Amino acid sequence: MKKYYRNILQRCTFCAFLLIFSLSIAAAMEALPDSPPVPDDNPMSAAKIELGKMLYFEPRLSIDGTVSCNTCHNVMTNGTDSRPVSVGVAGQKGGRSAPTVFNAAFLTAQFWDGRAATLEDQAKGPILNPIEMGMPNEKAVIDRLNKIPGYQQKFQEVFGGDNALSYDNIAKAIASYERTLITPNSPFDQYMRGDKTVLSKNAKRGMELVDSVGCTACHTGANFAGPISLPMGEGFYQKFPAFVDNDYIKQHKFMDDLGRYEATKKNADKNMWRVPTWRNVAMTAPYFHNGTVQTLDEAVRVMAETQLNAELKDNDVNAIVAFLESLTGSIQPQTMPRLPDTAKMSLVGDQ
Amino acid sequence: MKKYYRNILQRCTFCAFLLIFSLSIAAAMEALPDSPPVPDDNPMSAAKIELGKMLYFEPRLSIDGTVSCNTCHNVMTNGTDSRPVSVGVAGQKGGRSAPTVFNAAFLTAQFWDGRAATLEDQAKGPILNPIEMGMPNEKAVIDRLNKIPGYQQKFQEVFGGDNALSYDNIAKAIASYERTLITPNSPFDQYMRGDKTVLSKNAKRGMELVDSVGCTACHTGANFAGPISLPMGEGFYQKFPAFVDNDYIKQHKFMDDLGRYEATKKNADKNMWRVPTWRNVAMTAPYFHNGTVQTLDEAVRVMAETQLNAELKDNDVNAIVAFLESLTGSIQPQTMPRLPDTAKMSLVGDQ
Repeated sequence: MKKYYRNILQRCTFCAFLLIFSLSIAAAMEALPDSPPVPDDNPMSAAKIELGKMLYFEPRLSIDGTVSCNTCHNVMTNGTDSRPVSVGVAGQKGGRSAPTVFNAAFLTAQFWDGRAATLEDQAKGPILNPIEMGMPNEKAVIDRLNKIPGYQQKFQEVFGGDNALSYDNIAKAIASYERTLITPNSPFDQYMRGDKTVLSKNAKRGMELVDSVGCTACHTGANFAGPISLPMGEGFYQKFPAFVDNDYIKQHKFMDDLGRYEATKKNADKNMWRVPTWRNVAMTAPYFHNGTVQTLDEAVRVMAETQLNAELKDNDVNAIVAFLESLTGSIQPQTMPRLPDTAKMSLVGDQ
Repeated sequence: MKKYYRNILQRCTFCAFLLIFSLSIAAAMEALPDSPPVPDDNPMSAAKIELGKMLYFEPRLSIDGTVSCNTCHNVMTNGTDSRPVSVGVAGQKGGRSAPTVFNAAFLTAQFWDGRAATLEDQAKGPILNPIEMGMPNEKAVIDRLNKIPGYQQKFQEVFGGDNALSYDNIAKAIASYERTLITPNSPFDQYMRGDKTVLSKNAKRGMELVDSVGCTACHTGANFAGPISLPMGEGFYQKFPAFVDNDYIKQHKFMDDLGRYEATKKNADKNMWRVPTWRNVAMTAPYFHNGTVQTLDEAVRVMAETQLNAELKDNDVNAIVAFLESLTGSIQPQTMPRLPDTAKMSLVGDQ
């Protein structure tokens, strides 16, 4: 009888442990909400989203007509260009890898260094960046779109008033479209909503590992990129690399770019980076700010060493990768936008 | 009474003249058929068209992942890139302006110089062209797609057999998709099918002018690019420029490129060009093989001088442009393809 009670006691303890463990996982992890936050000064509408989609796919927003937002943040695939760093006008290369646009609407700061507070602010950057879309100034952008009757009409319809076709409104429309680019229905989300059959045993072990190893200290919240409830503009930053005494640092040139410091020039921001999302990460190779790591399992190893000073066993890497794969969401089918024509003349060429 | 009969006679003569004139216009001009010719060895199917659309939008068919078919032949706008000449990988420029993909299915030879007999043959060119998509050889293309499980599966589904993912089948799928890119319902087509109210008076005058001035001697057939009933591979070529004693020749460097001769090296092919389509021409500025003419009215003036040795009056140019605008067809809404992911690793980068 003693043995029987001991068994019962052991089982209860084990169950309690499991319960607490599950609760702690559950507390750290959340399903993605069905819709992202929307700023009060830029409410969404079907017409605005449609205009934003047109602008998102519009190569005439670049100086020579070769680069659109979608060139580097391709929504037909993974919301990025799968390249180490992107290629802008005239074959120029940027210094950082294009982050995916999917679920960017849940980030509380944009760009790798968080230098834009909102999607609206972010959208204004690449158009005027000389190595990305290369337009010389806001006026040149507006002048060009003003020569396209279809855009004049569409901006009037969406924003109205004398200044409907403004740089601010271009950004507002693009941001509204981007707020539709979310992937809430991954296997992980289905699991969190109650379907416990959808994750493999290995993926579930990976889910426990990312917690026990320490990854979710930073990759937290529904977007695994920091709390999604922070005020817009308040980015969630972490130091990378945290441990520099390993071969990866030199091999991947991780210290060549000082992250947020490059934008703020504050010493405290040296090597600080906005925590990137894990959602759809299995689709968005190559990895890290400079895109130097080719595969997801290598990325997991690098992170363990550089951030947690831990060397993971192969089967642990494998389990974590299986869990990360469960964060690949389904992307809703979209119609292609129709870009309005340019009234019997060409607006783009070599300057 | 004599006067009365004379009037009757005059009216009858006038009516007869009008009838003959209308018949001659009607004989020269035809509405676009609802579907293009399909080769026996590449029947269309929904699955093949869908695969072709994926490949058409697939930047991973280029060496560095930056250029897809759609980059230069953008189906969201006018089937071309609106640039003088296109930009391929690493910012390299081609020598000729990208022709629109819309209604290319009705052409009996492809490229400006007709060097490809079919859409299938055409599709194989740019992928391996070092200044366009830059893949080193067919094997490299197949090897890359073979690393994408979604493509393996899709090629198997569409083509079956041991060699489903072949270079020939890539071209077949792309060509099948391109055969859906036709614009049969322009105002002109509606007019030809009986709705006589759809063209303005000016456009109708333009329609008569292109016949009387002589444009339709070459811009003939339903695609205004030569007979669409020629056997595939038999291109419809004309000499351009035919009259060289005018300022346009030097100004636009029209003689720098010898056209079909560059492909065949036959003297008889010097300055011979496949006649380009008029369909959607109002949307596809800039004009000519080198894209040096910015506006449609200037293009009309240039053609009159270089091909017919004629100087057109402004109001005649205006009427011809109004007619050409009536050839802008409606483009069917399309869903965006989903490009399959690359299994946790990057396949493109800088070589």
